[in-house]
Amino acid sequence: MKFRNFKMVDYVVYGRGCFDQLDEILAPRRKNGQPMVFLLDHYFANDHALRTRIPLRDNDVLIDADVTTEPKTSYVDELAQRLKDTYGTVSGIIGIGGGSTIDLAKAVSIMMTNPGKAQDYQGWDLVKNPAVYKVGVPTLSGTGAEVSRTCVLTGPTKKLGMNSDFTPFDQIVLDPELIKGAPKNQRFYTGMDCYIHCIESLQGTYINAFSRAYGEKALELCQDVFLTTDWTDESDEKLMMASYAGGMSIAYSQVGVAHAVSYGLSYLLGTKHGIGNCIVFNHLEEFYPEGVREFHEMVRLNNIDIPVGVTKGLTDEQFDTMINVSLGMAPLWENALGKDWQQQMTRERLRALYEKL
Amino acid sequence: MKFRNFKMVDYVVYGRGCFDQLDEILAPRRKNGQPMVFLLDHYFANDHALRTRIPLRDNDVLIDADVTTEPKTSYVDELAQRLKDTYGTVSGIIGIGGGSTIDLAKAVSIMMTNPGKAQDYQGWDLVKNPAVYKVGVPTLSGTGAEVSRTCVLTGPTKKLGMNSDFTPFDQIVLDPELIKGAPKNQRFYTGMDCYIHCIESLQGTYINAFSRAYGEKALELCQDVFLTTDWTDESDEKLMMASYAGGMSIAYSQVGVAHAVSYGLSYLLGTKHGIGNCIVFNHLEEFYPEGVREFHEMVRLNNIDIPVGVTKGLTDEQFDTMINVSLGMAPLWENALGKDWQQQMTRERLRALYEKL
Repeated sequence: MKFRNFKMVDYVVYGRGCFDQLDEILAPRRKNGQPMVFLLDHYFANDHALRTRIPLRDNDVLIDADVTTEPKTSYVDELAQRLKDTYGTVSGIIGIGGGSTIDLAKAVSIMMTNPGKAQDYQGWDLVKNPAVYKVGVPTLSGTGAEVSRTCVLTGPTKKLGMNSDFTPFDQIVLDPELIKGAPKNQRFYTGMDCYIHCIESLQGTYINAFSRAYGEKALELCQDVFLTTDWTDESDEKLMMASYAGGMSIAYSQVGVAHAVSYGLSYLLGTKHGIGNCIVFNHLEEFYPEGVREFHEMVRLNNIDIPVGVTKGLTDEQFDTMINVSLGMAPLWENALGKDWQQQMTRERLRALYEKL
Repeated sequence: MKFRNFKMVDYVVYGRGCFDQLDEILAPRRKNGQPMVFLLDHYFANDHALRTRIPLRDNDVLIDADVTTEPKTSYVDELAQRLKDTYGTVSGIIGIGGGSTIDLAKAVSIMMTNPGKAQDYQGWDLVKNPAVYKVGVPTLSGTGAEVSRTCVLTGPTKKLGMNSDFTPFDQIVLDPELIKGAPKNQRFYTGMDCYIHCIESLQGTYINAFSRAYGEKALELCQDVFLTTDWTDESDEKLMMASYAGGMSIAYSQVGVAHAVSYGLSYLLGTKHGIGNCIVFNHLEEFYPEGVREFHEMVRLNNIDIPVGVTKGLTDEQFDTMINVSLGMAPLWENALGKDWQQQMTRERLRALYEKL
């Protein structure tokens, strides 16, 4: 098809405190004897207040999701296998956390009903069977993972999502209260994932009116909350909507230079997505002059540290690895620089860029 | 539930010319021997070019939908009965047209699988069974009917939609080329449905950050296209997105005075929704001063005739009927004027307003 037929999330509930409706939302989805499985970001391992609000019933399971690193296919396989061994099948998987936990929940749901290993489904439209019922409850906003049709996983040979119509959630629960307590630096890095994505997609060559409408709104909301020194409840509400709108805007757009370059960093050094984008975008004046100027202003106003010198002392071989990974992201480069991107972005130019980081 | 759990449309395709993907989109939904039924707005009765692009296969049916008046429950029943008598069941219903045709397609899809009469389901969450597969293809933009969870119908006792989680479409096809040929006045009236809805909801007391994000974007897009004298392809693209965003914004917001008053007009005089809202909004300076000023500017720039004097010569009894219908819309008034709306909007004040129209 020329235009992507975009699979939407089935149900959205948005509101301050709506997390308390989760029990009621799950009730009709419960199947006799099959538990609901809550994957909770390990960040909340000691958050008694949040843990007691999780509506555990009967044989429901609460698992602390280890997202010290971004999710690996092996971890997805391990979790799905454990659930299959213990329960046969489950009523549903509920991911509560940041982008990694959200993506993990999608992937485990898919592996409950699809044979083989998670790595077999890294790619586009490889998933064969509908996943079990799945719910996303973000506690960080910016990645847009709550509405995307992918779940990014690191496999034995590649970092790539399971892109499929079976990947989006059946339900998302958008409660701005849940992102209130996020650490300031983390909130900024994740929020900037949305901001940078908007700059890249709005200036890209792929965009259409659908994605532009969502992208412009997401950008405006990011500017509203980060171009100021005050953080209020309204900022949480806006940032949560920015993430949602940014995620929707991906339907007919693509990211650009920052994402392409940060993928290399992430592959080689394990740099997390949000902070990796910030490290790269910090030096992209030549590609996104206005956006980078505004980004610097946001960094200053929010008093954030963006790491520098992260590629210092790397070997030629390591630089080559990053360059190979990055140049492999052809659609991102084409979106950013046009069809002749290969003439523009030589290995030498990219090496010089990596050396700046 | 305190916050509405909003059922989204399942699939969205947006793009200039994407109507040509309809055949491919429908293919996996076809069931052996059961036709796809295309309900085509009677406005296109002689549009050979469009008719030949409709992907009719096997025993598919093309029905010219008579939307001279907004859809009646009796017409829904008649169409559904005819299809049941002839085919037993169908693979799907595809509505191609303006808001009336879009709503008609939703209603007929529901009545293919639910017993009794359409009037039995006018209200909230009365629909019991999932509808047959249904697709909406708008050829006019503004009402937001393509994404709403209702389909407004005039029944023997009331004008009220079938509000339910089974009402939203499985698929919408948003092709800006299809709205290109709309008559200028009609395009304006329907577009203003979106504009007025945004003004009412953004100034209302019910709104939250989710609906505000969508409402603000829809408003901005309406301003972009109607605060100018040029109409371009880009205007069609933006107006189509304005309608979509305006429809989404209804999730956590409500309309206001213009809609409440125009419902009375529509009930008594059969005034269509778009033009009815314009007739009323034209005189609402005291409630929406900025919005009405801008509306007058749009009317002027687009050289549109807004009818006046439509209530001239009506009897006291007729005024009373309109007032009763209008004051029955409690949530609209509360959203517009606050909890003490009954003190503010007396029968006398409303009568004076109706007399101005």
